[in-house]
Amino acid sequence: MSSSDSRPLGVATIGHAFMGKAHSNAWRNVGKIFDVPQYNQVVLVGRDQARTLSAAQHFGWAEASTDWRSVLERDDVDIVDICSPGWLHAEMAIAALEAGKHVLVEKPLANTVAEAEAMAAAAETAAAAGVLSMVGFTYRRVPALALARQLIADGALGEVRQVRASYLQDWLADPEAPLTWRLDRNKAGSGALGDIASHTIDQVQFLLGDTVREVSGRLHTFTPSRPFPDGSRRGEVTVDDAAWATLTMASGVVASVDVSRVALGRKNALQIEIYGTGGALKFDLERLNELEFFDRSRPIQTQGFSTILTTEPQHPYLENWWPQGHMLGWADSFTNQARDFLLNIATQTQPTPSFADGLAVQRVLAAIEESHAQRGTSIAVNQLPVGAS
Amino acid sequence: MSSSDSRPLGVATIGHAFMGKAHSNAWRNVGKIFDVPQYNQVVLVGRDQARTLSAAQHFGWAEASTDWRSVLERDDVDIVDICSPGWLHAEMAIAALEAGKHVLVEKPLANTVAEAEAMAAAAETAAAAGVLSMVGFTYRRVPALALARQLIADGALGEVRQVRASYLQDWLADPEAPLTWRLDRNKAGSGALGDIASHTIDQVQFLLGDTVREVSGRLHTFTPSRPFPDGSRRGEVTVDDAAWATLTMASGVVASVDVSRVALGRKNALQIEIYGTGGALKFDLERLNELEFFDRSRPIQTQGFSTILTTEPQHPYLENWWPQGHMLGWADSFTNQARDFLLNIATQTQPTPSFADGLAVQRVLAAIEESHAQRGTSIAVNQLPVGAS
Amino acid sequence: MSSSDSRPLGVATIGHAFMGKAHSNAWRNVGKIFDVPQYNQVVLVGRDQARTLSAAQHFGWAEASTDWRSVLERDDVDIVDICSPGWLHAEMAIAALEAGKHVLVEKPLANTVAEAEAMAAAAETAAAAGVLSMVGFTYRRVPALALARQLIADGALGEVRQVRASYLQDWLADPEAPLTWRLDRNKAGSGALGDIASHTIDQVQFLLGDTVREVSGRLHTFTPSRPFPDGSRRGEVTVDDAAWATLTMASGVVASVDVSRVALGRKNALQIEIYGTGGALKFDLERLNELEFFDRSRPIQTQGFSTILTTEPQHPYLENWWPQGHMLGWADSFTNQARDFLLNIATQTQPTPSFADGLAVQRVLAAIEESHAQRGTSIAVNQLPVGAS
Amino acid sequence: MSSSDSRPLGVATIGHAFMGKAHSNAWRNVGKIFDVPQYNQVVLVGRDQARTLSAAQHFGWAEASTDWRSVLERDDVDIVDICSPGWLHAEMAIAALEAGKHVLVEKPLANTVAEAEAMAAAAETAAAAGVLSMVGFTYRRVPALALARQLIADGALGEVRQVRASYLQDWLADPEAPLTWRLDRNKAGSGALGDIASHTIDQVQFLLGDTVREVSGRLHTFTPSRPFPDGSRRGEVTVDDAAWATLTMASGVVASVDVSRVALGRKNALQIEIYGTGGALKFDLERLNELEFFDRSRPIQTQGFSTILTTEPQHPYLENWWPQGHMLGWADSFTNQARDFLLNIATQTQPTPSFADGLAVQRVLAAIEESHAQRGTSIAVNQLPVGAS
Repeated sequence: MSSSDSRPLGVATIGHAFMGKAHSNAWRNVGKIFDVPQYNQVVLVGRDQARTLSAAQHFGWAEASTDWRSVLERDDVDIVDICSPGWLHAEMAIAALEAGKHVLVEKPLANTVAEAEAMAAAAETAAAAGVLSMVGFTYRRVPALALARQLIADGALGEVRQVRASYLQDWLADPEAPLTWRLDRNKAGSGALGDIASHTIDQVQFLLGDTVREVSGRLHTFTPSRPFPDGSRRGEVTVDDAAWATLTMASGVVASVDVSRVALGRKNALQIEIYGTGGALKFDLERLNELEFFDRSRPIQTQGFSTILTTEPQHPYLENWWPQGHMLGWADSFTNQARDFLLNIATQTQPTPSFADGLAVQRVLAAIEESHAQRGTSIAVNQLPVGAS
Repeated sequence: MSSSDSRPLGVATIGHAFMGKAHSNAWRNVGKIFDVPQYNQVVLVGRDQARTLSAAQHFGWAEASTDWRSVLERDDVDIVDICSPGWLHAEMAIAALEAGKHVLVEKPLANTVAEAEAMAAAAETAAAAGVLSMVGFTYRRVPALALARQLIADGALGEVRQVRASYLQDWLADPEAPLTWRLDRNKAGSGALGDIASHTIDQVQFLLGDTVREVSGRLHTFTPSRPFPDGSRRGEVTVDDAAWATLTMASGVVASVDVSRVALGRKNALQIEIYGTGGALKFDLERLNELEFFDRSRPIQTQGFSTILTTEPQHPYLENWWPQGHMLGWADSFTNQARDFLLNIATQTQPTPSFADGLAVQRVLAAIEESHAQRGTSIAVNQLPVGAS
Repeated sequence: MSSSDSRPLGVATIGHAFMGKAHSNAWRNVGKIFDVPQYNQVVLVGRDQARTLSAAQHFGWAEASTDWRSVLERDDVDIVDICSPGWLHAEMAIAALEAGKHVLVEKPLANTVAEAEAMAAAAETAAAAGVLSMVGFTYRRVPALALARQLIADGALGEVRQVRASYLQDWLADPEAPLTWRLDRNKAGSGALGDIASHTIDQVQFLLGDTVREVSGRLHTFTPSRPFPDGSRRGEVTVDDAAWATLTMASGVVASVDVSRVALGRKNALQIEIYGTGGALKFDLERLNELEFFDRSRPIQTQGFSTILTTEPQHPYLENWWPQGHMLGWADSFTNQARDFLLNIATQTQPTPSFADGLAVQRVLAAIEESHAQRGTSIAVNQLPVGAS
Repeated sequence: MSSSDSRPLGVATIGHAFMGKAHSNAWRNVGKIFDVPQYNQVVLVGRDQARTLSAAQHFGWAEASTDWRSVLERDDVDIVDICSPGWLHAEMAIAALEAGKHVLVEKPLANTVAEAEAMAAAAETAAAAGVLSMVGFTYRRVPALALARQLIADGALGEVRQVRASYLQDWLADPEAPLTWRLDRNKAGSGALGDIASHTIDQVQFLLGDTVREVSGRLHTFTPSRPFPDGSRRGEVTVDDAAWATLTMASGVVASVDVSRVALGRKNALQIEIYGTGGALKFDLERLNELEFFDRSRPIQTQGFSTILTTEPQHPYLENWWPQGHMLGWADSFTNQARDFLLNIATQTQPTPSFADGLAVQRVLAAIEESHAQRGTSIAVNQLPVGAS
């Protein structure tokens, strides 16, 4: 284990675009909102020197660096927080773990199952030495979803039967929206599938405490070519705009998943519905402070979905935020995530979701692609332990 | 009592405009939806012979008449259902009662307190002879509001403290909407106050089983002149466009009421919120199949307003309609009302709301006008029994 | 054509359970709400003499009969309205058409593709002689969905890309709910698939004016055995509790469909979302007077889903109902449907949805079952014209 | 003006309870989210040395102090941010302004009109010397409300006619909730009136750019005695639990206001509705990322309230936060407020709301109390300029 008891933990974040900014925001605030081990924002890592320096100053980092490998060698860095694009995750995360650094990596864990397997194996090895790792499926730390998991675990839904999970966005609804790296299969791995279906799959596994055994899936690209950002010409979109799947869980639960980046009018609608024999839950990330709960044990005359405002001190993570009725924002879930990771480190407990959890998602994504290639035929998901496959 | 056991009850409805159509619809359907005493749609009464005849044929009446007084003399008429404008209510209702006919009269009971008092006195006299009367505050028969009353009566709200009632429409939002009889004080009595505040006041009294003791109120006319329907010239609007009041109930509950016909975008938003020490309720007529219920006895983690879809067989009036999940419409409340009135007649039980209840509303309306005239000063409401004032 | 110009059309309805009651309600009211050709409620047909007679009296029919074949021979019957269970549709409808009667048959058209093909062929033959037919996908007559179709046809959504359609109910959520004929494949044909997925498929085809070309689907039964109604013992459930499918339309649109009878808390949630390049729509049958519309042509600052209350005189079917803001109920769509059918007869225009439309739905249902049998593999849907297959 | 161009602005915050924490959070983040002048979190001021020191460390302040007067003498402090209870506002703010410090003071401006007048006079004097002041009606910086003001100013509502503003909470719904300083008139000035009605009144004035001319009001205390926090005995509640008022604006607009701390189930429901001749708006702080807008200029068929998700870069304050669809939280409005105040200082422009705006609110509150004392009679509001009364 790399951290010393006698000094604050040092954090390095790699990346300063959207996710880098969100993570920086979390590191800046987590120690002020929660009681966590002392830590410092040591260094922000980027590719371009001037822009990284500017971002570091802007986001509250002591230093900037363009050499992530050298950062791994620093003694004052204990935590490496990887917010680079997916194709860099495996190389960086494995190197950081090997250097004895705790690693938080943004989702999805990697662009391929092979990379994810290597990462999970590295994480397992590192864990034996007290070096911890976590993948950033941040929505596990939205209080309403954390509450949902509690309610399910407590049996409030009886036996769960089916899940409906979707994630709808519209930033590609415009056929003339430009062709960025996120639409290039070589860089992004996949489109809506890896980017947002990964969240839905992680949520299904998280909320139910279950794993996917079999999938049938489909991908589709509505706009096969788009203009390059400079507008000069059009290029091919090599990833999916939307994806659909049905998942059979080990328990027999059936979960449907559908995601889209062309669902006009839906901005960030991660929606999850869970139906059991005794209760049901509904959630929409566009109203992230709310969880709807149907309780069949109530008298029929007053049964109905209750809109729980998850801002009471009794709700997950809320005790340290604001008094009841004062809404959290999207970014606050990252602060909750940083809290949990710091506490995991302090107590030497395995963070969740682990790299193994991230690998499990990756295998489901791969099986959906395989099913799509086979025109929808059900595909069994290999969920053998790392190393046993 | 006018009805014979050996033949169906005969119904006569006076008026065939909006309310006459809604009541005809109820009479046509009530015997098919509910188990009620046999009855016939004997005669529809209007002013214009041709139009009344056409309406009678259209709405399912056996005959048409332009002479309401002669209808009162008919032996085959047992129920007189008065849907004429408010300024005719008193004369017609009193005559009908004196002729031994059961009377249902549309709200508001009358245009003045004096008329309402005379009507209530006539109703009391008639009741002694088994002749029954009812005022058509139909929304008491919306299942969600009937359920609300049950929940309150059962103590589900603990001690009620405050009520927020409003009724928002927008059919006068356009400053060029024409000047009809409804905007003429001589004919309509008042504007939004009598037309829609009357509903809110009746609901407050109905839901709480309480009476208004004191009021402070205000009226306002935003558009003081409007074009006549023929567009030739403008005339003065002599009634209120909107009204506001706070009501102190005998129990100490404070109810706020505000109504408007210029609330752009609100079409028929009778909204009621009731807050108690143990629970709360919310209702909106624009979603009339829903009642929201907050139950403080639940664990804090899952407290929230539950949206009850009031379409279960266990909900008021629903057993005879459709299976669960099949929504009722606005007009169906009139059918529920006709059912209750027919059953009251069959069982010789006093219908509610009675003319006395209608008078109580009228006295509150008058007190609001008086308070407005005195620049908002609180006015005690005389709620002495009829004849005791 | 069977109807004479000189006398009212005679209507016979077969069946007096849930659907028979809803259709009777429509026949009783359609002539009072809308201007339609004269008609009479001639005869109600059922299996049990006493129960049929009672229902006929209750629902407003002049006569009762237990012999549907003899009803087809009556000269005073012009319209045969079939509300019997699905396995009787084909025999009754074909006989009625051959007897020269206009036929309205409840959905789904039949239990099998073969029956539906025979019905569509019979309808085509009859149409040549002026005898008309229609299948009762009543939700086409919900004003909000009729408006949705208009908006799409008018181009308000630009190019449609994807549809999300679901139909969620919970009347089988209780594992101890009894085993009725609806759960017997021999009688019901299928479960949620034929009963409610049929509605979603018809809506997709109706709203887009498009046909399904290919499907991938899955069925599942969560509760494989249930107690018989008498509670004596358990029997096998031979139909699906839930179904999932992705549909590829001829235009390239991708529609996802999922339906369930075990979605606890959802009572009658037919939900449809349609996303185009220029706009989007959302609908939920539990709030059937509302349609949500997102219009990308608005300035970004004020873009958002607008909740249209479809109760304006300008909305489909509304001119003849109530003033703005007065909600329709579920049953009123049946009245709208009866209106359209009567007007189709009067003007000798082909009703929609036709038996051919019903057959198209049936073929999609069959393809979903076939895909399920082949573990999700995409199945092409034969949509050849009747007689060309 | 106290700040030097050559060094960062120094900030001192007085108070570290709820508001002190929220303000500290804003100061910690504003420079990381927005481009603002350089500043330092110099010192946090509290009463208790140990607790203030702990809070200072926790919330990111360089130093702690228990002597607010000495802080005013420091050259490295340019901004004094007052989050102490209301009865201390006047003394502290006036002293700070006289010391040449820019002052941000939490709402309400003061507990009495006399104090508020003295503060406004001091602010006017200070402004002449370039020393700026602002009162913290933070909700002006909720993006949805800032957008509402823009839309109204741009004429999107036509002529505004009426406003419905309410603020509902339930933290005193429990009759056994303890008696704190907030329920003591000597310390808190008033109850729901000053605490939350002040927000509604400021919003009405802000959104319309108008002032209150006349009020009719009422106060009520539902629970007149409560247990002291130590539970030993009960004491008298000397402030209102709820308040109701109608406000007549200089323009003739009528605004209704009602607020409560016993509205069970409502946690932080600041709700505002504004109705004009051309459009309408609705807002609820419990869904603070949403603004509903009704636009009468649209075709009737598609009119309806649009739910605008105010998270587009084009929305007020959003450009510097997160991409579209990523919700802000309640606390982020404080960051927006700190941004505006810093930019006002940098550009030497008058912040809004000014102390004069805060005084205007105070005068309305006083008039409501006066009206209550006179049983609801309308009271003219003195809105003469400071010094002219």
